[in-house]
Amino acid sequence: MKQLIEPKILKGTRDFLPQDMAKRNLVMDKIKSVFKKFGYDQIETPIICPAETILGKYGDEGEKLTYNFEMRGGTRIALPYDLTVPFARFFAVNFKNLPIPFKRYQIQRVWRAEKPQKGRLREFYQCDIDIIGSKSLICEAEVAKVIVEVFKALGFKDFKIKINSRRLINNVLKSFSVIEENFMDCIRIIDKLEKIGKENVVAELESLGIQKAEKIIDFLTPEKTNEDTSKKLANFDLKEISEFMGYCKSLNIPEKYIEFDPSLARGLDYYTGITYEVVSKDTDFGTLCAGGRYDNLCSLFCEEDFSGVGVAFGFERIMLALEEMDKFGDVKSNSKALVTIFNEETKKDALKIYSDLIKADIGAEIYFQPDKLKKQFKFADKKGIQFVITRGPEEIKKNTVTIKSLQSGKQKEIPYQQLTSYFKGYYEGQ
Amino acid sequence: MKQLIEPKILKGTRDFLPQDMAKRNLVMDKIKSVFKKFGYDQIETPIICPAETILGKYGDEGEKLTYNFEMRGGTRIALPYDLTVPFARFFAVNFKNLPIPFKRYQIQRVWRAEKPQKGRLREFYQCDIDIIGSKSLICEAEVAKVIVEVFKALGFKDFKIKINSRRLINNVLKSFSVIEENFMDCIRIIDKLEKIGKENVVAELESLGIQKAEKIIDFLTPEKTNEDTSKKLANFDLKEISEFMGYCKSLNIPEKYIEFDPSLARGLDYYTGITYEVVSKDTDFGTLCAGGRYDNLCSLFCEEDFSGVGVAFGFERIMLALEEMDKFGDVKSNSKALVTIFNEETKKDALKIYSDLIKADIGAEIYFQPDKLKKQFKFADKKGIQFVITRGPEEIKKNTVTIKSLQSGKQKEIPYQQLTSYFKGYYEGQ
Repeated sequence: MKQLIEPKILKGTRDFLPQDMAKRNLVMDKIKSVFKKFGYDQIETPIICPAETILGKYGDEGEKLTYNFEMRGGTRIALPYDLTVPFARFFAVNFKNLPIPFKRYQIQRVWRAEKPQKGRLREFYQCDIDIIGSKSLICEAEVAKVIVEVFKALGFKDFKIKINSRRLINNVLKSFSVIEENFMDCIRIIDKLEKIGKENVVAELESLGIQKAEKIIDFLTPEKTNEDTSKKLANFDLKEISEFMGYCKSLNIPEKYIEFDPSLARGLDYYTGITYEVVSKDTDFGTLCAGGRYDNLCSLFCEEDFSGVGVAFGFERIMLALEEMDKFGDVKSNSKALVTIFNEETKKDALKIYSDLIKADIGAEIYFQPDKLKKQFKFADKKGIQFVITRGPEEIKKNTVTIKSLQSGKQKEIPYQQLTSYFKGYYEGQ
Repeated sequence: MKQLIEPKILKGTRDFLPQDMAKRNLVMDKIKSVFKKFGYDQIETPIICPAETILGKYGDEGEKLTYNFEMRGGTRIALPYDLTVPFARFFAVNFKNLPIPFKRYQIQRVWRAEKPQKGRLREFYQCDIDIIGSKSLICEAEVAKVIVEVFKALGFKDFKIKINSRRLINNVLKSFSVIEENFMDCIRIIDKLEKIGKENVVAELESLGIQKAEKIIDFLTPEKTNEDTSKKLANFDLKEISEFMGYCKSLNIPEKYIEFDPSLARGLDYYTGITYEVVSKDTDFGTLCAGGRYDNLCSLFCEEDFSGVGVAFGFERIMLALEEMDKFGDVKSNSKALVTIFNEETKKDALKIYSDLIKADIGAEIYFQPDKLKKQFKFADKKGIQFVITRGPEEIKKNTVTIKSLQSGKQKEIPYQQLTSYFKGYYEGQ
């Protein structure tokens, strides 16, 4: 007996079948068209990267989760952990040839060596937008507008962008006598609030030696309205938040979409200003989109300093959410018709029909051999092709062709010359 | 001084700038739309793969060129060398849920640890189509038709598909008393005919111990017409070739696009029938597309036997060829207009203009700060945005807006309410 290779894939990676791809492309296209409307240009960066351009930029946690390998010859490579750092590297190389501020979108796979679970994969797509090269808070507001337009376009109803400022959370921690070198550790713990709950966060903060941990959390927890939250924090400098909110209003973003949440932490080191996180009550898949303002990312790679703001859309979670919300109808075949082969003798005639349909720009397929018609019809049905075209010796003699709708079961014999116009007319008429 | 990380990428990998991506998307979309017209469905397979599902399927040469690494924990992974083997693995897992014969297209990156040179990269895109689950030679003819439609859609004029049969070349070798276990080595040497020339091929064959090497090559070299080539090989079984040619004719493929070339070898082990290779006199980038019939690929992964036929389009070479043929005009911005900010006081007004344009589905951008108008106009120009929109305090008072075309230099002041219809009308009128 021959030795089979198990046709397996790695945990946390996936095969996408035609029906998956049809849905993914639909969502991808909607997201892209919003990005384009706001003037974001697409870029792509390599997948295999020199390790030093990826590692050491995501904190200890991120470091552990970054795939990296030694190549023959000893070069160490890493796979992107996100699209922000590769973008910063890209911009450091190319900024001289780009309009500044530069607005880019990027849709690629990233990798994380996590324990796979629902909505958490090892190989997955991210969709990022960034504006780099401007410190104006209008950028932050524009990104919020793009987020709102994307989620509306995808059919989400009850979503909101939680926003906060890294500067503000630092100031609050300082006011509670947390020393600066503990800021990032605190922020990383507070970031887990949604995931592990208040009690555990307080315990972790206390084990870090933080006093009044519970008070900090209570103080950071948002009130019912943005106004009330702002009142509670009135002793702190809220200029950044209020300026941002003002721009959002000018951009006509309905207030219900923005929630000022001082406890929003975002675990990554590199945020310096406004941070975002999108959640939706339409589903319970947690964060669907997140990001913020960063100042020092490019300066890892070049002398120049560029400030940027950007968010990553969690494409895979968005897909899961949309599935759950039942946003996908039946996936239809690209092909309008299947040309059947009646028998051995009519093969060439069937090929001619096929060629005529293709020439008329009608998506079509041919069945490859003269199997029983029933089998050929069944194939069309399985592929979701709506019409089957049959032409046996009788029809060839009369120069007609028979078209059957698999949906209605009805069939019609028409002069051969009307074939392509039948389909064009049929579909234009729909 | 701070320590900078060199923002480098690995040799043979690339960054794609917006203008690159615009061109690549254009070409990708054309290719995809042909695939779809013929009823091919898109699939995707993982990038990080268990090494055993990739290695050992491409001969010694391919084995050396396949990226593979050991992960923490000892699992060995490999990156796809092509899309055919991952597809065979995919099909072995999923065939029970797919219509058979199954026609898929797949557009993804693949990796080869080659010495980088022009048109030869380490990380690059391939576009594949395959029909699997039918032995009918109509499949081979359909694939030829798809190839012709793709290259025509891309603007190639003088291209041809060289075709041959792996069975035929084996029979010819046998008739020259080459022993069967030397077939693949001979085929791999003959495959280099175009690259290293007849003399070197003959020398390599001789050093393999092949007698009459020169005679073999002469015999395999095509004549001026397909008919003459067939005559020369009349002693061999040409039924496969002639049946294929007949179907191509029925599919209305002009004869000039198909060349019967008995020397066409294709170095890969797994071909068993018709093989293809596309070259074009429009450029000198060598093979632009290649593939063939394979019988045993899936049987590596499952008990069932599925025969398939497919080709890979060399996307990167096609891009280079199209660049050389000057097939790309100026890349235009997605944005119709840049909203400028006149001064600090008009910021909110500018944001409102921006929001109104976006609401009307007009691709637009806002400049993020009240820099000198000249600087803002220059930015629009650099991005290839055709119109700039300005509204200072005077215009706000009159409720008008000024639109300037950067192409003609002309400007026009119109009532604010006409702004969005101006752009809609303008573009519809074009």
